[in-house]
Amino acid sequence: MEKTKEHRGLYIGRFQPYHLGHHMILTQIAREVEELVICIGSAQVSHELKNPFTGGERVLMVKSAIEELPIKCYVIPIMDVMRNAIWVAHVVSLTPGFEIVYSNNPLNKRLFDEAGFKVRSTAFYERDVYSGTEIRRRMIAGEEWENLVPDAVCKVIHECDGVSRVQDLARYDTGK
Amino acid sequence: MEKTKEHRGLYIGRFQPYHLGHHMILTQIAREVEELVICIGSAQVSHELKNPFTGGERVLMVKSAIEELPIKCYVIPIMDVMRNAIWVAHVVSLTPGFEIVYSNNPLNKRLFDEAGFKVRSTAFYERDVYSGTEIRRRMIAGEEWENLVPDAVCKVIHECDGVSRVQDLARYDTGK
Amino acid sequence: MEKTKEHRGLYIGRFQPYHLGHHMILTQIAREVEELVICIGSAQVSHELKNPFTGGERVLMVKSAIEELPIKCYVIPIMDVMRNAIWVAHVVSLTPGFEIVYSNNPLNKRLFDEAGFKVRSTAFYERDVYSGTEIRRRMIAGEEWENLVPDAVCKVIHECDGVSRVQDLARYDTGK
Amino acid sequence: MEKTKEHRGLYIGRFQPYHLGHHMILTQIAREVEELVICIGSAQVSHELKNPFTGGERVLMVKSAIEELPIKCYVIPIMDVMRNAIWVAHVVSLTPGFEIVYSNNPLNKRLFDEAGFKVRSTAFYERDVYSGTEIRRRMIAGEEWENLVPDAVCKVIHECDGVSRVQDLARYDTGK
Amino acid sequence: MEKTKEHRGLYIGRFQPYHLGHHMILTQIAREVEELVICIGSAQVSHELKNPFTGGERVLMVKSAIEELPIKCYVIPIMDVMRNAIWVAHVVSLTPGFEIVYSNNPLNKRLFDEAGFKVRSTAFYERDVYSGTEIRRRMIAGEEWENLVPDAVCKVIHECDGVSRVQDLARYDTGK
Amino acid sequence: MEKTKEHRGLYIGRFQPYHLGHHMILTQIAREVEELVICIGSAQVSHELKNPFTGGERVLMVKSAIEELPIKCYVIPIMDVMRNAIWVAHVVSLTPGFEIVYSNNPLNKRLFDEAGFKVRSTAFYERDVYSGTEIRRRMIAGEEWENLVPDAVCKVIHECDGVSRVQDLARYDTGK
Repeated sequence: MEKTKEHRGLYIGRFQPYHLGHHMILTQIAREVEELVICIGSAQVSHELKNPFTGGERVLMVKSAIEELPIKCYVIPIMDVMRNAIWVAHVVSLTPGFEIVYSNNPLNKRLFDEAGFKVRSTAFYERDVYSGTEIRRRMIAGEEWENLVPDAVCKVIHECDGVSRVQDLARYDTGK
Repeated sequence: MEKTKEHRGLYIGRFQPYHLGHHMILTQIAREVEELVICIGSAQVSHELKNPFTGGERVLMVKSAIEELPIKCYVIPIMDVMRNAIWVAHVVSLTPGFEIVYSNNPLNKRLFDEAGFKVRSTAFYERDVYSGTEIRRRMIAGEEWENLVPDAVCKVIHECDGVSRVQDLARYDTGK
Repeated sequence: MEKTKEHRGLYIGRFQPYHLGHHMILTQIAREVEELVICIGSAQVSHELKNPFTGGERVLMVKSAIEELPIKCYVIPIMDVMRNAIWVAHVVSLTPGFEIVYSNNPLNKRLFDEAGFKVRSTAFYERDVYSGTEIRRRMIAGEEWENLVPDAVCKVIHECDGVSRVQDLARYDTGK
Repeated sequence: MEKTKEHRGLYIGRFQPYHLGHHMILTQIAREVEELVICIGSAQVSHELKNPFTGGERVLMVKSAIEELPIKCYVIPIMDVMRNAIWVAHVVSLTPGFEIVYSNNPLNKRLFDEAGFKVRSTAFYERDVYSGTEIRRRMIAGEEWENLVPDAVCKVIHECDGVSRVQDLARYDTGK
Repeated sequence: MEKTKEHRGLYIGRFQPYHLGHHMILTQIAREVEELVICIGSAQVSHELKNPFTGGERVLMVKSAIEELPIKCYVIPIMDVMRNAIWVAHVVSLTPGFEIVYSNNPLNKRLFDEAGFKVRSTAFYERDVYSGTEIRRRMIAGEEWENLVPDAVCKVIHECDGVSRVQDLARYDTGK
Repeated sequence: MEKTKEHRGLYIGRFQPYHLGHHMILTQIAREVEELVICIGSAQVSHELKNPFTGGERVLMVKSAIEELPIKCYVIPIMDVMRNAIWVAHVVSLTPGFEIVYSNNPLNKRLFDEAGFKVRSTAFYERDVYSGTEIRRRMIAGEEWENLVPDAVCKVIHECDGVSRVQDLARYDTGK
């Protein structure tokens, strides 16, 4: 029943970092759409305890990790606009056209719904473990975190000296 | 003694939403000035738990509610500038000239006072009840809130599906 | 046949200054809609040769001039966003809801049309004479310009020392 | 002699629209690097005569056109920062790390050179014909332009009603 | 052994207000460099409880206080950019070239270190007492604070009516 | 008659680059005020044909050149705000208080005059020769320009490889 697939879906995440929870969600979505637009949200933010990686580093993580997905994907860093009322127009202007939005964020769901898009929730996969917060906590504590992310992402994090950066930021996080 | 009236006064509020407390204050001010500039502050903010309504929705609320006021009013949405030192110049550039500022916000009072404006405090009317915070709390809890706002405002909120929006935002409020 | 009226229309102008050409257009539109949203575009721009008046001075001009219009009007200064793709969302977020846009500006017409709004052209009334460009030229040349604007606007311009400002700017216009 | 390849190269274009001149340049670069970052510059600009297409429409054009390139490509829309002195840091923060920049723009070359990057010029392929300016001119004049762009791009332009948009903008281009 | 001095050092502080702790740090740094660039961070922020003074008032404080330092100093107000990844480029573009950065802020240290600058920690001098937080607390409480700042700074604060401003802001601090 | 001196004056220039015309003006002003605030305008602009030098490079030029002036000077880079109506408040917030503004720019004169400042024109010294435009023209043409700037400025320009930068920008100037 290929025909019931939506043509193009949108998924927005911060990916700080990309982890296996994201991966399972995207793998599921890839069965429901023909093409997928993956937006890297808050792309301008980095070097904060909750947002250690740059937009470019996250592009690299996501692109590396999704290579095995069987559909065409667009990976697009999106900077914040700080105005909810223009958020949808902002995303739309920087992405290929899409018909359906996948999200568990009530705000995103509300905004895209008010703008007339079809919105669908995504499943969670052991959210306590597969989460950016837990991974960053483990990095700071010196615990094992590598098993929570795809191998390709692990490589990117090591190449940008990511663990040391998170540990540095943990000593004093302000955003200046 | 008409002559002792100030020519034009300024009042700034966020109006999330406009309620009877605002209305009593404006009714009082209308006795003291010939014309009134009503600024809708943080006009660019919406779809947040503390700021659910857009600037345009709030223009509609205020204009609907003040129709009965006996003086000429200017209702002007003002976007934030995030810099206190230029706030007064920003407001001045977007409004008809005024001589007196009505406010209970110590920051606003200080800024307009430093800039040489006459500043006057406003009375409060049962602030615990007539407040945006209380109205939004009641909306979320499913309690009666309609008696805290003018009928015209109630109509605007229903037309923009406001209660459902506040309830959605209450589930998870970030600002993205 | 009142019923065939649109509920609410939008008109955007820079009003540098408001003149009789605007007035004839708005008078015509007032026959076609029940309420009218008048946006003062480029509201943040002032003290330029082509844009001498502040947003607030223009609010005063427009409000003074439209008092005789028989319908309810909303006069709203709108700052530029410098991004055509979010222009419509920006305007929508700061205005009461509208169904029809009046404009002769091909860009505005295209943008609102792509966003799904009904768009209608406005008539021109002796555009060579009733234009901001011509009025500013006359101010600089010391010729009579007062007969091109409503009396109420003439008064606003005199009160803000507008002619002298335009003449000053004419000596050297940069935008700094 | 694979080993003499640079690991990752950067190419920046506005792609208004993507044409065969771009394609020949990218095909050449693809022989010199292992991976290629393609930045879509001025991504926030659209609906202007010189910049008719949105960032998202251009993502679609580029991704469609480069599918046949034999190397891994990253297609990243980049918004302007309006400050040359931080341009390189801005690009770097939104892209995977690169070692070499391909450009014929003297400003870009100077900025990346001052920042310590290796910079290489690209060849031109009949620049008078294969240029965005010429393509947009033909669209306005109703002449044939389709032979100047890859088929995949032609399809994208038709799907977003691009020719009609360019013609509309040609009547009056301001940027509002 | 003058020759082992670095040519030019950078120190960034918010100086809300400049106090004797800053002074002891700068006095120490002045022994290690030939020239010193002193950046006044968050220069655009003022009239907040944690940031009561304007950039200009802080320029005056710092310039007054460092007159006795035996080396050439540059005092430069720097506005925030809200993007860590371009912070270093922003600072570099607005300051004379420097080789070494003095800081105890882990984020600043990390950012300048990633950008290839030499970074050195500064000593603390009774941080509990010589701190902006403590000084502002004393101003609010009506306690003696003058002994924590250089005399020249005390004079600047009195001239700008600083204590009364801090007390006003303490009643209700939002940032609007 | 020291007493007739103004306490503090303001002078704003772009200083692209600082030249002997500026120097003669500042030398003259230094006789009329006790302290002088020198603002480096458009501080965020660089690497453009008309604005080749960064704010920091210009700080270095000005500070080097004015060392011989007999009064206390504050050299402050000021970024543009792109809104004339808040320009004065912006400058005021980033500078020590001043009473008089020196300028030959009609816009600046008008803006500070409307804000209530005393404004005075400056003399010109062979404006055709002592001008940034002429200096940049000579740099591009390979003619002698060094005799138009103070020696200290000449040194700064050579240290930042300024002539080569201007020549590069002359080949193609856009602002990206």
